[in-house]
Amino acid sequence: MTTPPAPLPVTTAPDPTAAPDLTADPLRFGVGARVTVAVMADRYAEVLLGALAGLDRSGLVVETGDVSTYLGGHEADLLRYLTDLGEAVARTGEHASLTVHLSRGCPGEVVCDLPGGAGPRGVEPPAGRTTGYRVTGEWALYPLADDVRAGVEPDHMRDIEAAIALARATGVVRGSEHFVTRLDGDLGTVLAAVVGAWTTVGRGVQHVTSHLTLSLHSPSHARA
Amino acid sequence: MTTPPAPLPVTTAPDPTAAPDLTADPLRFGVGARVTVAVMADRYAEVLLGALAGLDRSGLVVETGDVSTYLGGHEADLLRYLTDLGEAVARTGEHASLTVHLSRGCPGEVVCDLPGGAGPRGVEPPAGRTTGYRVTGEWALYPLADDVRAGVEPDHMRDIEAAIALARATGVVRGSEHFVTRLDGDLGTVLAAVVGAWTTVGRGVQHVTSHLTLSLHSPSHARA
Repeated sequence: MTTPPAPLPVTTAPDPTAAPDLTADPLRFGVGARVTVAVMADRYAEVLLGALAGLDRSGLVVETGDVSTYLGGHEADLLRYLTDLGEAVARTGEHASLTVHLSRGCPGEVVCDLPGGAGPRGVEPPAGRTTGYRVTGEWALYPLADDVRAGVEPDHMRDIEAAIALARATGVVRGSEHFVTRLDGDLGTVLAAVVGAWTTVGRGVQHVTSHLTLSLHSPSHARA
Repeated sequence: MTTPPAPLPVTTAPDPTAAPDLTADPLRFGVGARVTVAVMADRYAEVLLGALAGLDRSGLVVETGDVSTYLGGHEADLLRYLTDLGEAVARTGEHASLTVHLSRGCPGEVVCDLPGGAGPRGVEPPAGRTTGYRVTGEWALYPLADDVRAGVEPDHMRDIEAAIALARATGVVRGSEHFVTRLDGDLGTVLAAVVGAWTTVGRGVQHVTSHLTLSLHSPSHARA
């Protein structure tokens, strides 16, 4: 066992000369997701393997672990894959949860490999598609102001307000709970709102993460 | 339906006169967790209800929703409850995942109800206990520098280094993956490391969140 790396993303000193290529390349900019699918059924392995089997991985790096699957690539490819994955699981009719962790602007793990002055990355929020399956979800979004140490103070409020407006426009924002925003709507629309807000905030802040927990085919939905 | 609140935690202007009481009271300071338990078995509801039935809720506000359960209260009570909950689920022998979202320093949801200058809250990292059940996990920790807008620049590095040292000392840090730190060890020790690091970073930063996904009785563990 090698010495374990530290657990926190910390942006290193800026190197503006390296910036242009870093923001253009999603993998070098650290655009990606980790997703955990939990199927509440004895046949969970069969359901998950079946769902994963037919998915279009084009444009993505996919690495499966025992806690989550890592996806690296362009925001539009991430949204497509997450929507396809969720739909494939939903199609089985089983109650399931999807835990999604999005990150951009901080490749690497401990100390970000990316200079603090490299971003932000300007990308249009990708278009989603509807699936016909309803989900409820809880969502948190974090613009991480690592840049303040480099003397750069990003305009959070402008980007956050744009993200809020975008999410509201999709009609899936249902209200607030402690620490999270409550979402309810079509699986594809909810994912598009979350990926879109994350992308939009990322226009003004280099390092942005977002966490989403979705519930599919909840017994509570049937009762509602 | 009332107008939905905005999805992002944003600290409002500081009001130092209100600070002392706010940091001392865990509920007013917004110390809490959201936890989602996904049991990979047809009898998921029975397992979850059974696990919840015998738990000691003392000191905590507990509100159950269809996506997660909210817990509000002192860091030590949160750690006790999360450990008891995880152990009760583990005892059933079923493969399960626990998704844990910790937050302190930003009560409310949209705009933090807490003034930006109220924190930080100084609390000793609570002691955990071992359970005899192994878990693997993926962990992210976010010190949120909302305070920069109020002209307060917290010393992130000091607190982050203390948190890293604490987590490493528990022996559960196994390495880094994209966006997360890989944890492996006794369920109780892993939870204590995560709650302890979150508490420790919170000594220097008002608003700190942390996200943890744990896998219990993974088929991958049996093969390893």
